[in-house]
Amino acid sequence: MLSLQPQPLTAHDFAPFGDVIETDGHPPQDMNYGMALRWPALARIETDAEGNACIGLVHARKYPLPWQLRIVERHPLGSQAFVPLDDTPFIVVVGSAGDAPQPQQLQAFVSNGRQGIHYRRGVWHGLLLTPFDEMDFLVVDRCGPGDNCEEHRYSEAEAPWIQV
Amino acid sequence: MLSLQPQPLTAHDFAPFGDVIETDGHPPQDMNYGMALRWPALARIETDAEGNACIGLVHARKYPLPWQLRIVERHPLGSQAFVPLDDTPFIVVVGSAGDAPQPQQLQAFVSNGRQGIHYRRGVWHGLLLTPFDEMDFLVVDRCGPGDNCEEHRYSEAEAPWIQV
Repeated sequence: MLSLQPQPLTAHDFAPFGDVIETDGHPPQDMNYGMALRWPALARIETDAEGNACIGLVHARKYPLPWQLRIVERHPLGSQAFVPLDDTPFIVVVGSAGDAPQPQQLQAFVSNGRQGIHYRRGVWHGLLLTPFDEMDFLVVDRCGPGDNCEEHRYSEAEAPWIQV
Repeated sequence: MLSLQPQPLTAHDFAPFGDVIETDGHPPQDMNYGMALRWPALARIETDAEGNACIGLVHARKYPLPWQLRIVERHPLGSQAFVPLDDTPFIVVVGSAGDAPQPQQLQAFVSNGRQGIHYRRGVWHGLLLTPFDEMDFLVVDRCGPGDNCEEHRYSEAEAPWIQV
């Protein structure tokens, strides 16, 4: 039985898969004549020429742990960002772009409660796991014509179990 | 002295200027095999051909009220969205696209604490006012080459005072 233990989410370790959306490690810029600080361009949304970046909202139910990850997916036409609207950690499971990852190649990360994540275009990932509470997310991803979701399924024997 | 009283933010009243980012009034879609609900494409980010949509974060200080609005701005190369990460209302002041609005043409709205807003490309707007508390926002707007901010200033005599 393959067990996958999430590691703390850091920009360095997540870099092969995309960006961590957080203020830590990014110097702010002054904005609005001293009334605000801004951290611009923490993630650049990728789309094909026919697509746009769109903003949506997601409400995720609370997942039971351990959770067996039977499906990974990727979006060939654009990148995808999730930013939590509640101060609650979540778990992200990722593999590289290209061929669907073997279960042993998957990596899991747990956020610190304020971090968001941005999957680069084509990066394989699991469903966003919210085992600590139900949560709301803001989602920014590609909208437009065409099929932008590919799935890959693991057998019950090979699919990894996520636990903290 | 021109006084501008914010009205409750609704999708209907804000439609000439852009979108309200909220779940109210939008039917959700199932996602992740019943583990999540999704409200996709609540706002479509506009950019010129050289630009991308980028995600940033903003920390806004608490503004004193009444506040005299001396400056409005617009972004000719792309649209701009602000979504609060705290459950706190804020005030948005908008005018139409095109010529800079006369002070009497400005409209002010106050959000309900969960709503975000999306200014369409070229729509004149004031600085986001956060008079109820300091607040964090997620910002999605156009990044790329070129000058994407125009300002218009009102004289002290004509500039409106915002109060609740």
